[in-house]
Amino acid sequence: MLFGDRERIVFAGDSVTDMDRARPCGEGLFENVGHSYVRVVENLLTVFYPERLIRVTNMGWSGNTSRDLLARFQNDVVALSPDWVSICIGINDVWRQFDTPAMPEYGVQPDEYERNVRAMLDALQGKVKGVFLLTPYYMEPLQADPMRRRMDTYGAVCRRLSEEYNTYFVDLQATFDRFFRYRHSASVAWDRVHPNQVGATLIARAFLEQADFNWNRIPPLPEQ
Amino acid sequence: MLFGDRERIVFAGDSVTDMDRARPCGEGLFENVGHSYVRVVENLLTVFYPERLIRVTNMGWSGNTSRDLLARFQNDVVALSPDWVSICIGINDVWRQFDTPAMPEYGVQPDEYERNVRAMLDALQGKVKGVFLLTPYYMEPLQADPMRRRMDTYGAVCRRLSEEYNTYFVDLQATFDRFFRYRHSASVAWDRVHPNQVGATLIARAFLEQADFNWNRIPPLPEQ
Amino acid sequence: MLFGDRERIVFAGDSVTDMDRARPCGEGLFENVGHSYVRVVENLLTVFYPERLIRVTNMGWSGNTSRDLLARFQNDVVALSPDWVSICIGINDVWRQFDTPAMPEYGVQPDEYERNVRAMLDALQGKVKGVFLLTPYYMEPLQADPMRRRMDTYGAVCRRLSEEYNTYFVDLQATFDRFFRYRHSASVAWDRVHPNQVGATLIARAFLEQADFNWNRIPPLPEQ
Amino acid sequence: MLFGDRERIVFAGDSVTDMDRARPCGEGLFENVGHSYVRVVENLLTVFYPERLIRVTNMGWSGNTSRDLLARFQNDVVALSPDWVSICIGINDVWRQFDTPAMPEYGVQPDEYERNVRAMLDALQGKVKGVFLLTPYYMEPLQADPMRRRMDTYGAVCRRLSEEYNTYFVDLQATFDRFFRYRHSASVAWDRVHPNQVGATLIARAFLEQADFNWNRIPPLPEQ
Amino acid sequence: MLFGDRERIVFAGDSVTDMDRARPCGEGLFENVGHSYVRVVENLLTVFYPERLIRVTNMGWSGNTSRDLLARFQNDVVALSPDWVSICIGINDVWRQFDTPAMPEYGVQPDEYERNVRAMLDALQGKVKGVFLLTPYYMEPLQADPMRRRMDTYGAVCRRLSEEYNTYFVDLQATFDRFFRYRHSASVAWDRVHPNQVGATLIARAFLEQADFNWNRIPPLPEQ
Amino acid sequence: MLFGDRERIVFAGDSVTDMDRARPCGEGLFENVGHSYVRVVENLLTVFYPERLIRVTNMGWSGNTSRDLLARFQNDVVALSPDWVSICIGINDVWRQFDTPAMPEYGVQPDEYERNVRAMLDALQGKVKGVFLLTPYYMEPLQADPMRRRMDTYGAVCRRLSEEYNTYFVDLQATFDRFFRYRHSASVAWDRVHPNQVGATLIARAFLEQADFNWNRIPPLPEQ
Amino acid sequence: MLFGDRERIVFAGDSVTDMDRARPCGEGLFENVGHSYVRVVENLLTVFYPERLIRVTNMGWSGNTSRDLLARFQNDVVALSPDWVSICIGINDVWRQFDTPAMPEYGVQPDEYERNVRAMLDALQGKVKGVFLLTPYYMEPLQADPMRRRMDTYGAVCRRLSEEYNTYFVDLQATFDRFFRYRHSASVAWDRVHPNQVGATLIARAFLEQADFNWNRIPPLPEQ
Amino acid sequence: MLFGDRERIVFAGDSVTDMDRARPCGEGLFENVGHSYVRVVENLLTVFYPERLIRVTNMGWSGNTSRDLLARFQNDVVALSPDWVSICIGINDVWRQFDTPAMPEYGVQPDEYERNVRAMLDALQGKVKGVFLLTPYYMEPLQADPMRRRMDTYGAVCRRLSEEYNTYFVDLQATFDRFFRYRHSASVAWDRVHPNQVGATLIARAFLEQADFNWNRIPPLPEQ
Repeated sequence: MLFGDRERIVFAGDSVTDMDRARPCGEGLFENVGHSYVRVVENLLTVFYPERLIRVTNMGWSGNTSRDLLARFQNDVVALSPDWVSICIGINDVWRQFDTPAMPEYGVQPDEYERNVRAMLDALQGKVKGVFLLTPYYMEPLQADPMRRRMDTYGAVCRRLSEEYNTYFVDLQATFDRFFRYRHSASVAWDRVHPNQVGATLIARAFLEQADFNWNRIPPLPEQ
Repeated sequence: MLFGDRERIVFAGDSVTDMDRARPCGEGLFENVGHSYVRVVENLLTVFYPERLIRVTNMGWSGNTSRDLLARFQNDVVALSPDWVSICIGINDVWRQFDTPAMPEYGVQPDEYERNVRAMLDALQGKVKGVFLLTPYYMEPLQADPMRRRMDTYGAVCRRLSEEYNTYFVDLQATFDRFFRYRHSASVAWDRVHPNQVGATLIARAFLEQADFNWNRIPPLPEQ
Repeated sequence: MLFGDRERIVFAGDSVTDMDRARPCGEGLFENVGHSYVRVVENLLTVFYPERLIRVTNMGWSGNTSRDLLARFQNDVVALSPDWVSICIGINDVWRQFDTPAMPEYGVQPDEYERNVRAMLDALQGKVKGVFLLTPYYMEPLQADPMRRRMDTYGAVCRRLSEEYNTYFVDLQATFDRFFRYRHSASVAWDRVHPNQVGATLIARAFLEQADFNWNRIPPLPEQ
Repeated sequence: MLFGDRERIVFAGDSVTDMDRARPCGEGLFENVGHSYVRVVENLLTVFYPERLIRVTNMGWSGNTSRDLLARFQNDVVALSPDWVSICIGINDVWRQFDTPAMPEYGVQPDEYERNVRAMLDALQGKVKGVFLLTPYYMEPLQADPMRRRMDTYGAVCRRLSEEYNTYFVDLQATFDRFFRYRHSASVAWDRVHPNQVGATLIARAFLEQADFNWNRIPPLPEQ
Repeated sequence: MLFGDRERIVFAGDSVTDMDRARPCGEGLFENVGHSYVRVVENLLTVFYPERLIRVTNMGWSGNTSRDLLARFQNDVVALSPDWVSICIGINDVWRQFDTPAMPEYGVQPDEYERNVRAMLDALQGKVKGVFLLTPYYMEPLQADPMRRRMDTYGAVCRRLSEEYNTYFVDLQATFDRFFRYRHSASVAWDRVHPNQVGATLIARAFLEQADFNWNRIPPLPEQ
Repeated sequence: MLFGDRERIVFAGDSVTDMDRARPCGEGLFENVGHSYVRVVENLLTVFYPERLIRVTNMGWSGNTSRDLLARFQNDVVALSPDWVSICIGINDVWRQFDTPAMPEYGVQPDEYERNVRAMLDALQGKVKGVFLLTPYYMEPLQADPMRRRMDTYGAVCRRLSEEYNTYFVDLQATFDRFFRYRHSASVAWDRVHPNQVGATLIARAFLEQADFNWNRIPPLPEQ
Repeated sequence: MLFGDRERIVFAGDSVTDMDRARPCGEGLFENVGHSYVRVVENLLTVFYPERLIRVTNMGWSGNTSRDLLARFQNDVVALSPDWVSICIGINDVWRQFDTPAMPEYGVQPDEYERNVRAMLDALQGKVKGVFLLTPYYMEPLQADPMRRRMDTYGAVCRRLSEEYNTYFVDLQATFDRFFRYRHSASVAWDRVHPNQVGATLIARAFLEQADFNWNRIPPLPEQ
Repeated sequence: MLFGDRERIVFAGDSVTDMDRARPCGEGLFENVGHSYVRVVENLLTVFYPERLIRVTNMGWSGNTSRDLLARFQNDVVALSPDWVSICIGINDVWRQFDTPAMPEYGVQPDEYERNVRAMLDALQGKVKGVFLLTPYYMEPLQADPMRRRMDTYGAVCRRLSEEYNTYFVDLQATFDRFFRYRHSASVAWDRVHPNQVGATLIARAFLEQADFNWNRIPPLPEQ
């Protein structure tokens, strides 16, 4: 499994990541880490790899577009000296184009989106052991939906940049598409964006699989 | 226009109708009528037909299926002696089949749905000047979506019963489908069910058109 | 209809306009636009002209006199680069003269009122496609009432400036006077100032009529 | 002055009387007596007649019409064994006819109003030392206003019954009319019904004058 | 009566004066003036002298000693350009000596108290039409009580300064002492300091008597 | 020390005893025992006599007079099968005679007080190991105060009954009188009734001294 | 894996199970299932076995001892017709013996505990497909601790009954003991009882392993 | 007894000391001193030594480690010019090492702990009459517990520094260990850190014994 003892993962993102995490830093006691997939990741790492101390820090911010995240990326991500960084951004870049179409600057167009994510990846170059790029998604499996089609454009940017920058790539859109062959999206999120805890567990599992998580291991016993 | 001076319309339904209406009776001062399409209907009737006193009563109840509405129909609708009744029910009958599929009795199947609505229409026979039947809807224009397809089954029941019972018929699914050719459903409701005020105005307009509402009239001046 | 695709209307005013709009900018998602006539205007534009994206921004502020509005006009109105501006101010200029008569500087006298509104109109010269001037009003149809008489003085200033500056003119006092031939003012506002949703709809209709709103149009279908 | 040592006055009425008095019985410690004119009456009696223990009990109930008050009159007034009773009722009987005209049973017509008040007076016959009848009022001095005209009808019922039953008569409408020659009604109540503390003091003074209150007395010193 | 049309009275003091008055300035609409004796004064002036517009401003601050009041006197009193000033300060100067005796600097000793009040009077010299000095008090009529005895020392300072500066003098301690010959102090204030509304009315009456208030006048009618 | 292992003490009283104790039974976890002297008693018993499990139950009720306490004495005290009972009642019997003198039935006269306390003592006869009678008190050391004088009458009833029934007697009035030779009552209670934690500790100490509490013991160590 | 399509599991227990589940029935939308290990179980079942609809119902109740759970077992568990039942009870039976030792009936002794659990198992005989018995636990790995020793007695009862009734047995004490070889109990629960989400995940994993949960399966795709 | 008339004790510490004390300074009226052992100390000093005015100031701050306390020591302790200082710090230094082991800088290692406490003691040299050093503790009597063992290391630092700096030494760990021979730690604190009021009384007694508190004295009567 990728994450070693005393390593730190910082999760950057929007409300899907945030979910009431503490300010200024989403980690530590109580509900500080929030109740998104980040918490599920932390719980599973701790339960299955108890002998490794892995520091999980949630730096999501509700409502962020890639423009907003870039503006705080140096302060909220790079300055924390993470070993690993996970980025899940872009949903609001697209959503605002559809829910408030009269306010054009509320959303972010694909070319700016690419510049923003690229700038984040550049800022991490040579500073971390690895980056996870999670695609933005829309829990609408029908590609005839114009917002889903638009979201795929942003997901494709992620895939392209992931290859270019050699990051770990987590295709959340594909994860949800597969799940919606069994259940309707309404069972995960009425608004097709904010996952309930089932959805958070789905994301966490997809993330951990990219990290070579082993569900069947027996952790070595510490010396007495 | 159908509604005459000193006539009463009672609106029955679920959360789409309810929207914080007062208990036990959603009418009168302050926010008593709630903030759904019922309020928009009342406002437009009052502004365009000020010389007619039309009593608007909101008896929606959040979360109701047709089974729940039938159980309170005598007490909450018939006993109010309305001149006109509007029924908009069925969304929860379908939604629960998709968001909580493991709890089968939470939803209502089409045959029971038909029996429930039929029982409401029977209860009104000979007691009112007219009934409006509004189709349940899902703000998903793509019929490939399984919940949309399922909802259409219930809308078809409404259409059939409307013809059989000779009620006014308001095809809300068609109303939304037409609107979504201009705007994405996310601009009306993130969850594709609960309309914002734009959506409430869309429903109100569709309702009033069935009532022969005249947007261009000049109301006769009262005698001094 | 005056307002074209991708044009912006900014509404300036007092509590009649404000009604819990978001800060700093009253537009966009959720209840951001507040629940005054501005929201009704936005809803009707969207429902009847769905193919035009018209940006509606509410910049009302509860308790404002014309003096207060002028002080923030550059920042809150001009700097937003509107295509259209609607101004409805003056009620508090008059009201304070009657409800707190011992505090003379709380109200604004007619000559200052004229200077204030004139300064706003000057600030918009050459920068917008059109201005709407809405008269301040008192929901008291009897001109023997001293506050109503006083309000008429301010309304007359609006009419005069409207002609001088060639703005659209919405005579809200006349709108309410006409309505009160059918209903008593108590049905719109107990305090004769803050309209309920019926009153908001009345104002919105009066506004839209000045904008050549067409209630009977069939919007052209977008190309598929 | 009418009220003697160890005598009890019970005030019956609507929200003008109620103003957050305690339930079930509006008297005693803290804010129990509410903050209407009843409290001002109690304060002035205590300060100017400190040697008399006069028990003041507020039994107003917000929103009451004469129909509502009659329904609880035996329990809330007669059963308290008052020495004196003050009744101020009727505003809601009239108001509902103007603010919710489509709900005819919300208001109370003059003939029923007279029957209701008469029934209260009959219930007190032979049981108390005196009754005060306070007219309902509307803080609108212009009799051209239809709600004011209507209110005068109810005030006239009070005057007639007061003579017939030989009660003390407090003409609150006249009290306010006189005050509004100096100040506008907006300085007492924006909604022309619920008085602020200036208005409460006006009512209390009018009440006390009917009770032969002496503002210039020097209370006899108690024996040491 | 001392206070003329369009004159302003500013009341300075501690919690006895403050009682939830608005910040920064305790005057005008709603509950802005607080609910202390200042409100009773304003009500009685308005009801008995309706033809005079007298501006009443409450600048009390809970917990203030004379040291605290002096520190804000220029800003909160003098800068408001009052015609009349009322000062009621000193209770906390004494109280802290008895309820937190281990914190010596919490209270204010008599010599400093005199300097503080003197500085306030000096600051008003030549700037106002008159000053009212109200004694601090303790609602304990027994002079054997050490806190009462101590309070009398401060009252004596007021009396002496009042004579020296020729201010109006309101002996609140004497007012309460007289009242407690009829009623126990527990009926006015459980803590012997913060008066209920009976106590507020007592203070207001004592204040107004020093201002030659006439309870029996008939205000001249305004010209029509 | 009187209280043995596995014995139960039930404290009956008014707000001085109650102080937010849990309902229906003031004992056990969290803040269940309230924050009056009862908690201080429990803490000191536990800390100085840790080897004895002594059950402390707070059954005080704010606002109770002896009449109120008697009405619930069987249910709230006797039915709990206490080994020891402490009764502290009477303050409200007296207080109401002074703070709401116009409501005569709010207080309780001495003869009824004696009957009430006697009935409580009779109800405990033969059922408990001992009873503590705590005098009602007023934190006013000057006997010239009429409420203090009145309270002494009730204290004398307690003393007399204590002798007659052979109960433990805790003279709280004397306890406070002694303390007020060092500090003013304002340091314990602004309202001269509800003690702060210093006062609660004073009461607890007076109570424990009557129970032969030994402050200097070394508890025997349990067997390992 | 044990749980099949359209089967229902009901979880009975105390606060460890409850954690804010909805009343009367902890299942379905929103946070109804609470946020204990029951939610983690539901999430993992849904994510790893999406093709099976498994109904998860949380019927825990904070503070319950085995005595409390037995009293509601018929109504809250048996009457729901579960296919599977999980019981985790006993922590409060023990805890009360240590945190409120003076209230002997607050806890439950081992013999009664055994009778209570036995009665639950008897009530399920022949009605369900299987029962899970989870041991009560104390997150204290040192058996020298008297509360831990006591808890082991109750765990032994569970083990014995589990064998006798042939239930699935989940040894939560052993689960935690093993985990505390890696981390201190403070990282799971400050109070050594209420697990945080890491602890909830530990319990869920231990539960699922007894149910033959397969972490590595690929769910069969549904037919299109 | 060490503390003399008009001397001040400042208590520095973490949440065990803080317990909702007022900001910026935890002393004086109401609940300002918080509800930790500091309040119990103040109460006992006042009740047993009423003739000495001893100023008790609580400057604890929840969550503080020795690093945090040192950072504010000059401002929050030294600048208050205390006669006596009590320091109880270190629990969070240790706790964070066990409850959030992945965040290494959250805790404080023993060498830094010693430097921090030493710096505080140096800052007080020559400025106070005496210092009390209270050991950090863990309410776990079993030394096999790793957090308890770790805590003992910090307690040993305190003992060593106490001897070196000649401070009063209060061994709270020993105090609790002794008490837990009678009762389980769960009766004082579920989390083994934050004492309930029994625990606060235990700490206060241990503190006062070091100050030669005399529980049996009769305070000398003041001169009349």
